[in-house]
Amino acid sequence: MSNETVTTIVGNLTDDPELRFTPAGAALARFSIASTPRRYDKQSGEYVDGDTLFLRATAWRHVAENVAASLQRGQRVIATGRLRQSNWETPEGDKRSSIDLEVDEIGPSLTFATAKVTKATRAAKTSGNPDDPWAGANREPATAGAAAGGGDPWAGPGADEPPF
Amino acid sequence: MSNETVTTIVGNLTDDPELRFTPAGAALARFSIASTPRRYDKQSGEYVDGDTLFLRATAWRHVAENVAASLQRGQRVIATGRLRQSNWETPEGDKRSSIDLEVDEIGPSLTFATAKVTKATRAAKTSGNPDDPWAGANREPATAGAAAGGGDPWAGPGADEPPF
Amino acid sequence: MSNETVTTIVGNLTDDPELRFTPAGAALARFSIASTPRRYDKQSGEYVDGDTLFLRATAWRHVAENVAASLQRGQRVIATGRLRQSNWETPEGDKRSSIDLEVDEIGPSLTFATAKVTKATRAAKTSGNPDDPWAGANREPATAGAAAGGGDPWAGPGADEPPF
Amino acid sequence: MSNETVTTIVGNLTDDPELRFTPAGAALARFSIASTPRRYDKQSGEYVDGDTLFLRATAWRHVAENVAASLQRGQRVIATGRLRQSNWETPEGDKRSSIDLEVDEIGPSLTFATAKVTKATRAAKTSGNPDDPWAGANREPATAGAAAGGGDPWAGPGADEPPF
Repeated sequence: MSNETVTTIVGNLTDDPELRFTPAGAALARFSIASTPRRYDKQSGEYVDGDTLFLRATAWRHVAENVAASLQRGQRVIATGRLRQSNWETPEGDKRSSIDLEVDEIGPSLTFATAKVTKATRAAKTSGNPDDPWAGANREPATAGAAAGGGDPWAGPGADEPPF
Repeated sequence: MSNETVTTIVGNLTDDPELRFTPAGAALARFSIASTPRRYDKQSGEYVDGDTLFLRATAWRHVAENVAASLQRGQRVIATGRLRQSNWETPEGDKRSSIDLEVDEIGPSLTFATAKVTKATRAAKTSGNPDDPWAGANREPATAGAAAGGGDPWAGPGADEPPF
Repeated sequence: MSNETVTTIVGNLTDDPELRFTPAGAALARFSIASTPRRYDKQSGEYVDGDTLFLRATAWRHVAENVAASLQRGQRVIATGRLRQSNWETPEGDKRSSIDLEVDEIGPSLTFATAKVTKATRAAKTSGNPDDPWAGANREPATAGAAAGGGDPWAGPGADEPPF
Repeated sequence: MSNETVTTIVGNLTDDPELRFTPAGAALARFSIASTPRRYDKQSGEYVDGDTLFLRATAWRHVAENVAASLQRGQRVIATGRLRQSNWETPEGDKRSSIDLEVDEIGPSLTFATAKVTKATRAAKTSGNPDDPWAGANREPATAGAAAGGGDPWAGPGADEPPF
């Protein structure tokens, strides 16, 4: 891919990651990251919180499985990926869109925590083409996403409501 | 500021930038950037377009004035800044939110164009403290934004509708 | 490409861009960007300069030509691309390495300047496959770089000396 | 800080992190991250490795301690921070410079691993001003860096040699 809109976000998981599988068997994990900037206030001489940004994120395959096995609500994470726009229609026919993060890499932040890291081991069958080291990682999520069903990937009874 | 969610986007202006002024006299420019990733398709052996991302952006003060004086609909730009979430309510009381870009720096992309650059000259009164080169640039947009009126900074008759 | 180390830098050109051509005829432009962070000093209540970062950058093909036609020493630019390490040996056999920026997109910053933008027009022969909008842009710089001669792409009589 | 050159790198630690303390008692951890891009080769139809980028990184205070307690040689990490240039002189009086990463946030990547995360608990005396949640994190590393001694922060017997 070229001309992707790449970003990195640091923030806390608003909930435990939700793990699902596409009909084709690809794992995907969904979660939201709440990121609050800190600003130095000259008047008071103290740091104050800025407005919180809530960014919904999707991770795929191995990353999705490892996220679900490792991370929990409230934990601080660092995630990098590409911004992606979803467009959908409400039952009333209104058009909606939102901007989410397609995760390339993610991990727990070590700013306020320590981590015990364990190399993941998986059966060959889940990692796709063994000649392609990326096959089991988060490659070509668009295809897998399409397989998961069109429309809003976050859709559900409350899809018309604000995400947060 | 620390822990901002920084991103850079390259894309085309969907319209001419719209220049306004806050009651306090600070210039702000609003515009949307349409960014389309390119992906190599192994099957066809050709590059194909991915889904377009539309990101609304706000620039402040000198940057806003220079954007309005320099950029037009359709032109390709490169912009860097911080993602910011806006929350508002529809007249029916439904909650909405969107993610926009608070622009720190922007310029026309030289990928498909040339540019003739002219140093901007301004009266001292518009540049604030002359000892602070940042005073007239995009510092503390949050304050200026608040002065411009609360709620959705993009609000208007169609604020309840999808942005694009 | 995946797992590139992407960055965006804003700073001033230390010199006019230098335009060259590879034996195969591909244009490349070289220049250095000096970026100085600003920090609020609590003691003095003023903004002070941090240490300047000098980053050497290379742009390719159309971008290179447009950079050479548009930008000059001292101008403020915004550039995004990928960090790349060059390794080489001094005549004495000492190993050296440096980190440069492979430019994907660049433009003049509109923070302190305005720009008059002109769409570039070029003969088909210089833009490669006319069906591929990327063909004439900065694709596959690695190949072109290799064609330009191995070793340090910045090499010259002073290659053993510090870049600045 | 404003106008920092922000970047995110994903790669493997070339060695165990090295933990030190400044004379003032601030912890700092040093390590290098090796990041190798992957590129799809049209001719062969396979993914191939690009050139590896080695980026030296410094983390401060709590982050430094948690990095030292959590990460080991070979592990894949995701780190975000600011590029910073160091300048120094060799014993022969030659000027050298290098570009390093001042780490803001770092964590183990969950692409090929799982992690068991534990909230760090520390005595109040190591976290500075208890009213300032950033005091114990990586704030104002420049000051701490200066306290650690001027010149090349990586200096040592081999400072004149290439870093890798």
